[in-house]
Amino acid sequence: MLCVGLDTDIDRMPNVFPASPEGIFDFNKQIILATSAHASAFKLNFAFYEQYGSRGFEALEKTIDIIPKEKLIIADAKRGDIGNTAKAYAKSVFEHFKCDAVTLNPYMGIDTLVPYAEYEEKLLFVLALTSNKGSEDFEQLQTMGKSLYEEVIIKVASSFSSSQVGFVIGASKPEALARVRSMIKENMLLIPGIGAQGGSLKKTLLANGGMPAMINASRSIIYASQGADFAQKAALEAEKLKTEINTISKSLAAK
Amino acid sequence: MLCVGLDTDIDRMPNVFPASPEGIFDFNKQIILATSAHASAFKLNFAFYEQYGSRGFEALEKTIDIIPKEKLIIADAKRGDIGNTAKAYAKSVFEHFKCDAVTLNPYMGIDTLVPYAEYEEKLLFVLALTSNKGSEDFEQLQTMGKSLYEEVIIKVASSFSSSQVGFVIGASKPEALARVRSMIKENMLLIPGIGAQGGSLKKTLLANGGMPAMINASRSIIYASQGADFAQKAALEAEKLKTEINTISKSLAAK
Repeated sequence: MLCVGLDTDIDRMPNVFPASPEGIFDFNKQIILATSAHASAFKLNFAFYEQYGSRGFEALEKTIDIIPKEKLIIADAKRGDIGNTAKAYAKSVFEHFKCDAVTLNPYMGIDTLVPYAEYEEKLLFVLALTSNKGSEDFEQLQTMGKSLYEEVIIKVASSFSSSQVGFVIGASKPEALARVRSMIKENMLLIPGIGAQGGSLKKTLLANGGMPAMINASRSIIYASQGADFAQKAALEAEKLKTEINTISKSLAAK
Repeated sequence: MLCVGLDTDIDRMPNVFPASPEGIFDFNKQIILATSAHASAFKLNFAFYEQYGSRGFEALEKTIDIIPKEKLIIADAKRGDIGNTAKAYAKSVFEHFKCDAVTLNPYMGIDTLVPYAEYEEKLLFVLALTSNKGSEDFEQLQTMGKSLYEEVIIKVASSFSSSQVGFVIGASKPEALARVRSMIKENMLLIPGIGAQGGSLKKTLLANGGMPAMINASRSIIYASQGADFAQKAALEAEKLKTEINTISKSLAAK
C-alpha cells in the first residue's frame, strides 16, 4: 500500500548531489534503490521535473527507466483538457513516459477523461477532495445536496469501470474519506498527506475500511536526512511507514 | 486580439517536415514567420510537445525562443496543484519557458493560483466555461443559485487584480459569455473555439461587448493547407480572421 513520492527538489537534496536535473536523477536512483523493498508504487510529481524543461524531462525519463517493473508508476501530472489535447497528454504519460497510472483533474468533464480510459490496462486517479485549505472554494461547494467532490466521485465512478478509475482523497479529512467509502467500495484511492502534511495514518486507515488504497508519502521519506546517511534514513522511514500501515491494517481487520 | 494556437500535430503537418519533434519546430518556425504580422499572441499547447518527452520540450523551448518579443506568449498548460508543486509549475512556465501567460485549472481552489500570481507582470487565464459537451458535468452544475463556472469567476476575480487574472470561455456559448460580461468587465478573456471548433465570431464579439479578449484559432490557421503553400495559406487565414475581428469590432463599436 505504500507509495513513495519522488517530488525531488534541488534545494532539499543532500549537498553531495549537484544542484541540477542530473543531480536529481542521481538522488532519485539512490532513493529508489533504498526504498524499493518497502514501496509498491512510486509517484512522480511532474512539476518538479518540468521546471527544468527538456533537461528536467530527461531526468524524469531516466528515473522512470530504473524503477523496478513490478512497481506501479504513477504520473502525478493532474492533467485535464479536451479532445485531441487529452489524447496527447494520455500519449505522453502512458506511451512516452510509460507510467501505469495518472492523476487527472475532472473540472472540464467526463469526456476529458475518456482518452486516458482508452488505455485499458492503465489506472486513472481523478482528483476528488484535496488536503489544502482551498478545497473549500470549489471541491466542497454544495451542489444539489452534495459537495462538488461527491458529485465528481458519483459521475466518474458510474462512467468507468472500478478497476480502471480511482480517486485522490487527502489524508487530512478522515470523516470525508469514510463518507466516500460508504459511496464507493472497489475503486482504488490515492491518499497523499501522510507524513510531512500531518495526516493521521490510523484515522485514515480506519476511515478507508480496508478497501484498496495507496498511502503516499514524499518529503517525510525522501528528505529524511540531509546527511551522507540520506538513503539509509529514507529506507528506514519507508520501512517504518510500511510496518505501521501493515500493523494498523491487521488490527483493524481483526476487529 | 488574434491569438494563433501552436497545437502542432505531427500527423497534420505538411509532408515536407520530418515526423519528429525537430520537424514540429521547423513547421512552427514557418508558421510564426507567416502569421506574426497578424497575431498579437501565440498559444503553446504543452500536451502536443510533452507527448515526445524531453525532445518535445526541446522543440517547445526552441519555438518560444523565436517568437517575436512583443507578442504575448501563452502557456496553454491548464495546470492546477497545491503548494510547492504549484510553485514549481509557475517556475516552469514563467521562468524556464519564459511565457507571459498561463492557463490554469481552478478545481483545487484559490490558494493553488497564488504562486502564479506572485509573478506580478504575468497573466493568469483561469478555466471557467469550456466548449466541450462535458462542460455540463461540473462547470455548469448549479451551486447555490449559480453555475460552478460563475462561482469560479466570482471567487477568482475577487481574489486577484483584474489586470492579472483572466478567464477561458469557449466560443460555443455566446449567451454564457454575455452573462459573464455582465459580471466582469475588465478581466481579459481567452476565447478558443473559433474556426475548427465552429464557434461564431460575430456572436462571440457581440457577447463580449468590446471588452478585453483574445480570440484563439489553432487548426483553422496552422493546417490551412497540407501543400507547399501551407505558410502562405496560414498567413491568409490569420489575416482573414484578424480583418473579420477588426471589421466586426468596429461595426459593433459604432452602434
